Amino acid sequence: MSDRRRQTRTEDVMAAIRAQAAARQLAPGERLPSIRRCAAAMRVSPSTVVEAYDRLAAEGLIRARPGSGFYLTGHGLPPLSLARPAVPRAVDPFWVSRQSLDAEADMLKPGCGWLPAGWMPEAALRRGLRALARGSDAVLADYGSTRGSLPLRRLLLGRFGEEGLHLSPEQLLLTNSGTQAVDLICRFLLQPGDTVLVDDPCYFNFRALLRVHRLRLLSVPRTASGPDLAAFEAVVAAERPRLYITNSALHNPTGASLSPQAAYRVLGIAAAHDMTIVEDDIFADFEPEPSPRLAVLDGLERVIRVGSFSKTLSASVRCGYVAARPDWIEGLVDLQIATSFGGPSPLAAGLVADILASGGYRKHMEEIRRRLAQARRAVAPRLEGLGITPWLMPRGGFYLWCRLPEGADPVRLSHLALAEGVVLAPGNVFSVAQTAGDFMRFNVAQMGEPRVYAVLERALRALRQG
Amino acid sequence: MSDRRRQTRTEDVMAAIRAQAAARQLAPGERLPSIRRCAAAMRVSPSTVVEAYDRLAAEGLIRARPGSGFYLTGHGLPPLSLARPAVPRAVDPFWVSRQSLDAEADMLKPGCGWLPAGWMPEAALRRGLRALARGSDAVLADYGSTRGSLPLRRLLLGRFGEEGLHLSPEQLLLTNSGTQAVDLICRFLLQPGDTVLVDDPCYFNFRALLRVHRLRLLSVPRTASGPDLAAFEAVVAAERPRLYITNSALHNPTGASLSPQAAYRVLGIAAAHDMTIVEDDIFADFEPEPSPRLAVLDGLERVIRVGSFSKTLSASVRCGYVAARPDWIEGLVDLQIATSFGGPSPLAAGLVADILASGGYRKHMEEIRRRLAQARRAVAPRLEGLGITPWLMPRGGFYLWCRLPEGADPVRLSHLALAEGVVLAPGNVFSVAQTAGDFMRFNVAQMGEPRVYAVLERALRALRQG
Repeated sequence: MSDRRRQTRTEDVMAAIRAQAAARQLAPGERLPSIRRCAAAMRVSPSTVVEAYDRLAAEGLIRARPGSGFYLTGHGLPPLSLARPAVPRAVDPFWVSRQSLDAEADMLKPGCGWLPAGWMPEAALRRGLRALARGSDAVLADYGSTRGSLPLRRLLLGRFGEEGLHLSPEQLLLTNSGTQAVDLICRFLLQPGDTVLVDDPCYFNFRALLRVHRLRLLSVPRTASGPDLAAFEAVVAAERPRLYITNSALHNPTGASLSPQAAYRVLGIAAAHDMTIVEDDIFADFEPEPSPRLAVLDGLERVIRVGSFSKTLSASVRCGYVAARPDWIEGLVDLQIATSFGGPSPLAAGLVADILASGGYRKHMEEIRRRLAQARRAVAPRLEGLGITPWLMPRGGFYLWCRLPEGADPVRLSHLALAEGVVLAPGNVFSVAQTAGDFMRFNVAQMGEPRVYAVLERALRALRQG
Repeated sequence: MSDRRRQTRTEDVMAAIRAQAAARQLAPGERLPSIRRCAAAMRVSPSTVVEAYDRLAAEGLIRARPGSGFYLTGHGLPPLSLARPAVPRAVDPFWVSRQSLDAEADMLKPGCGWLPAGWMPEAALRRGLRALARGSDAVLADYGSTRGSLPLRRLLLGRFGEEGLHLSPEQLLLTNSGTQAVDLICRFLLQPGDTVLVDDPCYFNFRALLRVHRLRLLSVPRTASGPDLAAFEAVVAAERPRLYITNSALHNPTGASLSPQAAYRVLGIAAAHDMTIVEDDIFADFEPEPSPRLAVLDGLERVIRVGSFSKTLSASVRCGYVAARPDWIEGLVDLQIATSFGGPSPLAAGLVADILASGGYRKHMEEIRRRLAQARRAVAPRLEGLGITPWLMPRGGFYLWCRLPEGADPVRLSHLALAEGVVLAPGNVFSVAQTAGDFMRFNVAQMGEPRVYAVLERALRALRQG
């Protein structure tokens, strides 16, 4: 009998028992028919009944008493509740994350920060999982080493070497995610009350994360070529932040990349005031040609590089990394043990390494860049037609940071759109100084459906009409 | 041509290019032979060369220039360095974790806190990975929902229901690990400087984790039936700890389980002084029959349940959980977004759910319990023969908490054993009050090799002879 057919028969037996329990034909505490009797009654093999009973026991509906058979517990399965309780929430930095992550399948998400699953290298992921299924039992079942998979670290170091950044494997630590990497760095370098500098606007989850650490947040306006340098120098000199957290390339949410002059000046100002920089390089591979990187210029003296594979390969395969001075990595290893007992799953790291090593990754990213360029060209005029104007046209990535028509409040727009099943990302969740009250971040990869524009148009009209 | 054979040919081409680079037959900046020329020279198909070049480019050894071919970067691969720098380290709570996690394959680890990979349900893990490889692209590539996989939560709630603990799916949050669950709870409930109570001895990583949170640690002696109740009541009344973190069942490191009377008294004292309890239930499924659980008695009013699958299914599949009051879970969801951008990999949760639902899990754990009972019976007399005496014989699990022969210092013993490739777990890493200076924790599942006893005997002799 095929696995599939056997599976179906097992499920038939399970369904029959569940139905009997629901109809009170079997009472809580009552013994189920013996394996043999049930097999005869349902015309299946005894081993099918054994599997069905085992699975019902795993679910808690029935319970084995050794030597005596199976009994109905009466607990059944807890009531299925897909929807989260409808707690009204402020539109804070968590709002966009939670709406996007918990969106029902039929919702549209121009506000979310990732590519649709269909854009990811599905065949390579499936092939990688099959390779893991044939892999060693250590990868299947053991904790990994404290720094994470050496093959993946070597591949990453090879890629860094191509940029001119030559590191040893001791300078690289794999983490559960890019976010977790920043979290560990904050734990390592900062005390509650320390001052941290971010861009205005910046990735909204930096705000959420830094708040968890009880830090004092300052921001500096972001221009098309990097932070406003006069403001940057003034705030660093006056407030002496311990840390500056930024995206140099394809900055979230503006899509702007750092100019060589700004990169040089930012490093100089940081050095003059002994400030550490976290460069979150998560959008690195979306650039057609690399823009300047602080980590490369500085050689990881005072810059820490952070990245992950959630935007390029899979958000389900949780794996990020941090590259830094070896003594700092030593400290981060201890922190990762204390707070997660180790790094990412060796399975996740193995899957990423498999795809990076296969060589297909380069082609995948070429294709993604091509599709995104096309999507930017298609989406921008449609938004302009609604009076929504991109602040700049980024050279890569999936974000368009846009000014709304005069008087259209992004938070009210987001509420109206959500009621129609569209998740948006209103400007001020990205702004520590709350200066983005007429901006909105759009993800061009999530805007193929005409319904997005219809909903935006209706919502804008409703706002105009008060 | 089979995948395997094609793979080998690709690797042959890669090896040839690497060898040429190493021998300086190809200089940095130099162009590689064209695909066609290389294919002819090596008698392979052009597509094999394309794949080999792509993979070398992924490693950083060569670089594609669009329209112009491939060039040697000259960066090569960074030098392979498996060994960590030999930094002398104090035997602190991190010592055992790092030695165990980074142990070379030929080392023996009676000090580590997990089962050998060979004890894990390898066939079920492989089958689960193959099922994922056939799964939906959302599970392969998307972030999961904020609380984590609903099928896995339902299975867990079914199991909790069997114990008499009936929860809704909103009361359960999946996490990257049990440790990360405790970390989130500390972030949610505590401020730096707050007082936290642990057992003496307790799991050493609780000490490491609580130190990260800048908390004040107090401990209460653990007896064979739970915390010393007089001492517990006195310290709770006098110091008003916010939190008590404990293992009720098969406590780490002693293997002792809580008595019904101690469970009732502990809850009463906690209620009288408004103290929250984290019950880390990671060894739950190792008990032959369940002992009393604080979470069940209390119904999750002031008790938080934490667990994971690292000890029973796979330490590589990172997935833990926390069950608590729904309003607390809401807060933990935000914290998990801020610090990890979501929970465990949907792939990891899917794999665990697949194995739990299959029903094979119950048989796997029966087999594990049988093997562990056998291992305890075999190991205890061998240790006693060396003058190493178990403090009690646990009813389950893999730990034996043992007193060493008089005058044998566990830290010195650990250093001597490490020099011979054996990782031990000296008593005081488990003790906040440093009262376990003549104890050692042994893992019976990691002590099948006769070499363990030979090394212990030699090291004990060396200590006796000064």
